[in-house]
Amino acid sequence: MPKRIRLNFIEKNCPTVDNIGMWRHPDSRPELYKELHYWTDLAQLLEEARFDAIFFADALGPFSTYGNSRDTAVREGMSLPINDPLYLIPAMAAVTEHLGFAVTSSITYDHPYAMARKMSTLDHLTGGRIGWNIVTSNLNSAALNFGWREQLEHDRRYDRGDEFLEVCYKLWERSWEDDAVVRDRQRRVYTDPSKVHDIGHEGEFFKVPGIHLSEPSPQRTPVLFQAGSSQRGRLFAAKHAECVFLNAMTPEETKYLVDDIRSKAKEAGRDPADILFFPRFVPVVAPTEREAREKFESYLEQVSTEGTLALLSSWSGIDFSAFGRDELLAFIERKGNGSQYIADYLSRASAERPLTVPDLAKLYAFGGIENVAVGSAEQIAERMIAFADATGIDGFNVAYAIRPASVRDFADLVVPELQRLGRVQSEYEAGSLRGKLFGHGDRLKPGHPGTRTELNANAPTS
Amino acid sequence: MPKRIRLNFIEKNCPTVDNIGMWRHPDSRPELYKELHYWTDLAQLLEEARFDAIFFADALGPFSTYGNSRDTAVREGMSLPINDPLYLIPAMAAVTEHLGFAVTSSITYDHPYAMARKMSTLDHLTGGRIGWNIVTSNLNSAALNFGWREQLEHDRRYDRGDEFLEVCYKLWERSWEDDAVVRDRQRRVYTDPSKVHDIGHEGEFFKVPGIHLSEPSPQRTPVLFQAGSSQRGRLFAAKHAECVFLNAMTPEETKYLVDDIRSKAKEAGRDPADILFFPRFVPVVAPTEREAREKFESYLEQVSTEGTLALLSSWSGIDFSAFGRDELLAFIERKGNGSQYIADYLSRASAERPLTVPDLAKLYAFGGIENVAVGSAEQIAERMIAFADATGIDGFNVAYAIRPASVRDFADLVVPELQRLGRVQSEYEAGSLRGKLFGHGDRLKPGHPGTRTELNANAPTS
Repeated sequence: MPKRIRLNFIEKNCPTVDNIGMWRHPDSRPELYKELHYWTDLAQLLEEARFDAIFFADALGPFSTYGNSRDTAVREGMSLPINDPLYLIPAMAAVTEHLGFAVTSSITYDHPYAMARKMSTLDHLTGGRIGWNIVTSNLNSAALNFGWREQLEHDRRYDRGDEFLEVCYKLWERSWEDDAVVRDRQRRVYTDPSKVHDIGHEGEFFKVPGIHLSEPSPQRTPVLFQAGSSQRGRLFAAKHAECVFLNAMTPEETKYLVDDIRSKAKEAGRDPADILFFPRFVPVVAPTEREAREKFESYLEQVSTEGTLALLSSWSGIDFSAFGRDELLAFIERKGNGSQYIADYLSRASAERPLTVPDLAKLYAFGGIENVAVGSAEQIAERMIAFADATGIDGFNVAYAIRPASVRDFADLVVPELQRLGRVQSEYEAGSLRGKLFGHGDRLKPGHPGTRTELNANAPTS
Repeated sequence: MPKRIRLNFIEKNCPTVDNIGMWRHPDSRPELYKELHYWTDLAQLLEEARFDAIFFADALGPFSTYGNSRDTAVREGMSLPINDPLYLIPAMAAVTEHLGFAVTSSITYDHPYAMARKMSTLDHLTGGRIGWNIVTSNLNSAALNFGWREQLEHDRRYDRGDEFLEVCYKLWERSWEDDAVVRDRQRRVYTDPSKVHDIGHEGEFFKVPGIHLSEPSPQRTPVLFQAGSSQRGRLFAAKHAECVFLNAMTPEETKYLVDDIRSKAKEAGRDPADILFFPRFVPVVAPTEREAREKFESYLEQVSTEGTLALLSSWSGIDFSAFGRDELLAFIERKGNGSQYIADYLSRASAERPLTVPDLAKLYAFGGIENVAVGSAEQIAERMIAFADATGIDGFNVAYAIRPASVRDFADLVVPELQRLGRVQSEYEAGSLRGKLFGHGDRLKPGHPGTRTELNANAPTS
């Protein structure tokens, strides 16, 4: 039986995700992010289409690498204004029963004692449907606004992250025993004090002597998502992640990363199959290929060269505002090495006329044009299946070109085709998000580092 | 026309609020706090009864003053386990149109850059129905778990609080101009960069150079609630608060505090009438007085002496576990000075037989038995009106004895009586929470310190 393809939908609590410029399209409603009914309608649509989860990205500061200024990001509505994604989840959970919620929340500017309660609260309210996308944040603008002189150095952010998670694991997995809350009216015991334990954590970054504030939630630890692609980030993912989100890449790069992180997970004592991989995917679908191509052309007209380069600047740390055509071309040829798509684009386009900066920027439209698939439902489904079978991934993070039209198109056209082919679910299984994704119950799998923390029995009590 | 009485309902995302022991009552469903449908049903009930708002209390650590141990709090389910209240609001907002939400969130363990975005997000999602109960947190257990060696000293917490609010005001009121977001598809401008300003804040406690992450929400600044009763706390309230929550007191004490804070507000350059006061009130109502008294007797049977004294210990900082009957009696006579109710109780009870510790603890049942009113709907309404007219308060924070029965009783019996007497609203006005409470529009009233902050134009940009 071929492997089931899991579907997450990507959103962000702001006008644009990585679809820079698309807010201008006549069908686009970027301002809907402020409306509660947009999110509750979306949740119901995704549940009807049997999506596994919605994935919320986030950003804690303006993108300002490009031209050393935030002006492009402000003008293009690029992840700015941006509201907190955590507050969308309770309303979406109230109108659904099965849809999962994977939410980005930074560990660099939060405290594990507070973060653990946030996630436990959401896991209780959603009945065990919470995933947490652990990010360390890479925006200098965020560090400054949280009062830091500069960002913590890259690898140190992950060191702090390891300890942050250790504290969370202790709070989630060890502080309250399963049968601590008894609500025994006769004996007058709501919670048995002998079954609630101080964690006694004293580390390099954190001291948390006491107990978790929340009683055990259905999953205890939320399903752990991660997206680090640096060497240190991949080690972090191999250790902690249950789901890995991959961004903008060829099948070859995808397979390389999947194999690398799985092998690092094995070295860390985990079963490599216990990590699920989700590359980003931008479908542009219509009833016929011709209509899809027309639709895509109408999108390409709205691509913002400056905005796209500003996004690329923030991702790469390179200021492309000073780059001319030749320097940009050289960058792309160096970075795009190995991508047949990019090689073809460059040779095909330059055969007709010299490529301009806007031509080159289009390669990064929608957050990386290689992630875009244009066609009929059959064509899109075929491409998804071929990509999944060639790379060992487990599903897709489906991104949109246009809010709200693209997700409706995908749900109406592509999902039924994938269901017909037996590659996505037509009905939900019962249980928590972790149970649905992995089939081994609601809790972390034994052997995951979250199940192996020990409390400090000698620590003074809180 | 007599002054309208405003109604807030008090809740907490945990098994018990201050109704210690009541979870044992056969009608009580303390565990409902974990269920999303409890909160959405409650929101609809409160909106049908035309409550102005729901008020969420919170605690960030176990109550452990009593016997220098958290065991009593754990055993009695006293504000523990406790989930984060912020996440209840979006789901409750999705099923209502008018109900306001006042939520407790501590400024001592959060950062203003993050807090400002949380509140703006909630104000957007609720369409301008957010209030924020600003607390500085007084639990040492919370300080320790956030990695502090000990709590910041009491008055310093308020100094930090003043600066915390100054940063929030700059972010909410000054960073984005009203017409910054233009979404001009022709000119390709989502937001006009010249209308989004760095706040350039550099203070004793915080450095926040940059811009607010959120665009202006309906109210910009949430309606500001405060409950400080110390001298420094009252100065803080007089400066910032639009609504003040008062706890457990006689009409005389209430009037004294109302007059004192209003006079401090006047000294701070504000109109004393711009602060609304809400004492805590626990109605026990039934169709007849006799039935109400029977109901109350069934509640009194469940009062936990140890739990009640533990609550009083956490409030007062005095460990009552070591107190015998005589010491407790002396404490009550000293602290209860001026309360006719307490004087009567002590003399009446001791005339029959020597008062025991459980007898004395009952004075603090339900968070202060003087706040409890027992009777028919007419009697309860009469008492509320008399109290309001005698003290100059503006409404009540209605607390419950039993979840979920008490609020239904109040909504079904007392609200119609108050409506019949023309003292509470029968229909909502349109507009934001601030607009509904004060009638001067959605935004802070000119003259409030939040409207008087200035940006640092010379600060380096973020």
